[in-house]
Amino acid sequence: MAQIKPRTLSGFMELLPARQVQFDRMVEILRKSYSLYGFTPLDTPAIEAAEVLLAKGGGETEKQIYRFTKGDTDLALRFDLTVPLAKYVALHQNELAFPFRRFQISKVYRGERAQKGRYREFYQADIDVIGDGSLDITNEAEIPSIIYKTFTALGLRRFKIRVNNRKVLNGLFAILGLEKQAGDVMRTIDKLEKIGPEKVRAILTDDFAVPGEAADALLALLAAGDPMAALEPFKGKNELFDLGVAELETVVRYMSAFGVPEDHFMVDLTIARGLDYYTGTVYETVMLDHPEVGSICSGGRYDNLSEYYTDKKLPGVGISIGLTRLFSVLEAQGYLNDALVTAPADVLILPMTEELSPAISFATALRDAGVRAQLHCEKKKFKQKLSYADKLSIPYAAFLGEDEIQQNKVTVKDLTTGQQQTVTAGEAVALVQAGLAARAGGTPIQEPEA
Amino acid sequence: MAQIKPRTLSGFMELLPARQVQFDRMVEILRKSYSLYGFTPLDTPAIEAAEVLLAKGGGETEKQIYRFTKGDTDLALRFDLTVPLAKYVALHQNELAFPFRRFQISKVYRGERAQKGRYREFYQADIDVIGDGSLDITNEAEIPSIIYKTFTALGLRRFKIRVNNRKVLNGLFAILGLEKQAGDVMRTIDKLEKIGPEKVRAILTDDFAVPGEAADALLALLAAGDPMAALEPFKGKNELFDLGVAELETVVRYMSAFGVPEDHFMVDLTIARGLDYYTGTVYETVMLDHPEVGSICSGGRYDNLSEYYTDKKLPGVGISIGLTRLFSVLEAQGYLNDALVTAPADVLILPMTEELSPAISFATALRDAGVRAQLHCEKKKFKQKLSYADKLSIPYAAFLGEDEIQQNKVTVKDLTTGQQQTVTAGEAVALVQAGLAARAGGTPIQEPEA
Repeated sequence: MAQIKPRTLSGFMELLPARQVQFDRMVEILRKSYSLYGFTPLDTPAIEAAEVLLAKGGGETEKQIYRFTKGDTDLALRFDLTVPLAKYVALHQNELAFPFRRFQISKVYRGERAQKGRYREFYQADIDVIGDGSLDITNEAEIPSIIYKTFTALGLRRFKIRVNNRKVLNGLFAILGLEKQAGDVMRTIDKLEKIGPEKVRAILTDDFAVPGEAADALLALLAAGDPMAALEPFKGKNELFDLGVAELETVVRYMSAFGVPEDHFMVDLTIARGLDYYTGTVYETVMLDHPEVGSICSGGRYDNLSEYYTDKKLPGVGISIGLTRLFSVLEAQGYLNDALVTAPADVLILPMTEELSPAISFATALRDAGVRAQLHCEKKKFKQKLSYADKLSIPYAAFLGEDEIQQNKVTVKDLTTGQQQTVTAGEAVALVQAGLAARAGGTPIQEPEA
Repeated sequence: MAQIKPRTLSGFMELLPARQVQFDRMVEILRKSYSLYGFTPLDTPAIEAAEVLLAKGGGETEKQIYRFTKGDTDLALRFDLTVPLAKYVALHQNELAFPFRRFQISKVYRGERAQKGRYREFYQADIDVIGDGSLDITNEAEIPSIIYKTFTALGLRRFKIRVNNRKVLNGLFAILGLEKQAGDVMRTIDKLEKIGPEKVRAILTDDFAVPGEAADALLALLAAGDPMAALEPFKGKNELFDLGVAELETVVRYMSAFGVPEDHFMVDLTIARGLDYYTGTVYETVMLDHPEVGSICSGGRYDNLSEYYTDKKLPGVGISIGLTRLFSVLEAQGYLNDALVTAPADVLILPMTEELSPAISFATALRDAGVRAQLHCEKKKFKQKLSYADKLSIPYAAFLGEDEIQQNKVTVKDLTTGQQQTVTAGEAVALVQAGLAARAGGTPIQEPEA
């Protein structure tokens, strides 16, 4: 038969089983963590009408989107989870209760040039709170605690949540007379960490006609050890600025009530997160030992989620984790905790007689007790079956030979320690359960010892 | 601003929040149930190279597939989970341990004409066991128990698993001299339930030149109250038939050890499941009160999963649940258990003072204890906030007014009973936990009382 070479497209993550278990465990923790904060799961279609997805249109999106026709219909694959959310909320606005808090962990599609760390199909894990006309600042204050609790639950410790407020930035630009160049200035100060203050100053003054004084004031502010104190002198000069500072103060004030330790949180006035979408608090999250990865969880407050679909004003705040990319970073850095069970089963049952009923009954007893069991009845040598268990890191093997069956017992072997005991089925179930409980715990991410 | 009408494509299921929770709960149970049998999760890309997906080619698949180009690449969306599995196993054969047991619960895409109950994007929930050259009959015997335990865990009771064996059918056709017409005969007897034995006999003899005697023998066999006994007289005449009967006997023999009650299982010699793929045991599952729905879980044994990609012989057995369609049937029939919590949060916290720290700390305490909590700090009237909780069916509200804060307490109200108590935060957490535990239990599917 003519055969086709099997392959998976480049830019598409396809994991081997043990890695997939690790990935799914992270997803499970995200779902749980988001749920604790009162977010409800959504699952919108991956395909939407192209005109719906491209309602905003323009730029990179149009180039990267997977767009195609089926029959007469112009279709496209979603490139993020925000646009489908905007559509969903506009479409179902009369059936939803506001504030509407949803999470969605789904694949999105971007036909970018494939390169290391870039995926064409990747998971985003998003949460958003959408208000009906207005949305209290508390929602913005709560986001860092969700980020903190989520990454901590995953097992990441050495990270920091950086927060800024777009009203502060925009107000500041107004105070310094830089409204015209606001976009250019923001893009330039965003590079501060990479290129340093001198180069930033040069670009600001030379390329964007920022007066030297304004550039110095800005750079001094951005370099301040205590940004909140450094903002004080600018108060009372611009309404937007004052409002932004008040919002930022509220966000900072409630951090400890929300359970975010001080060393995991900072105000960083250089963060802008793009030009035209966010209007209040903005967030980035960096791994302290891997700043080169960039932000692993970002987002912010916006004023008008669904403006392309409805006149209803729907302000919101949200964050997104690029999960596929994060997973590939964790894998590459050796941060995945390989000590957690990735085997497809807890017990591999090896029947050693022709009649299988006792082995099958034992498998049923294990499963009824919530223990994952696999029967291995293939015509293979005993040694091959044990090496199968070994290859899959299955924690226990159970043997049922004629002796065991006559005594109404089963021999259970702990494949890690090599210890084995011949006990009743009920005792075997309890023994395995106790062993599994002892192994449980531990988080999917484990940072290397410093 | 020019606006686009928000819409979701027809044939694409998009659920409201409470329904989505019910759907997700079913997925969660499927994952758990499949895991108990030692299946490992996979998640292959939704997009594959078109030549890979269409390696087998032909027929409805080519017409229905979503196919498009991006750059120079000819791409397509998967239309099932079997072809991606065949690719995966062929591609990763040296990294996998066989038998390879995987489950995948993912969306697939078929551009069919949209009609009631037909979806263009829908979830399949598949399990397969793939052997390396050979695969023991025990695997085929185990499948009905997985079907039984899975639907029982979902809460479905009134269903029956029907089993047949393709070797029996093909052997029988050989014995009756109907090898030439085997395909036509199979398609015709498949209609037995719908059109009755007389019409089937007429079609067999008139349209497909089946001798009257052979038709009578066949129909008598298919009508037999005890199919296994009815097969006896044909034994010893054809090797394939004898092998098939032996396999079927093995499958039946182990049912009780696998925990499948007799009334949930039957041998049905009319089941064929298509013409050219399955080679051994085949399965269908029907809802007793809704036979019109057809099979809700089907599959069978095949000999060569990846023949279009590799010379390696990979026999397997698998089943699939069309989850999106099943969910829509359950919804339409009123089978979804609306008594289970679908609210996004267990407790809605209503702070009644300017200073929010006590309310936030209480939210943090609840979440730390695993209770889903939402702060409602919007500037809305108290009554509006309670009606929000009501609309979302949130079980508890918690009030923190000045009195409560001064006493270091919180007032918790059970929104179902209307009872409220003012207690410490710790007591409140315990009280809510106990209440939630009492409400827990119950399955996502609840059949109406007979």
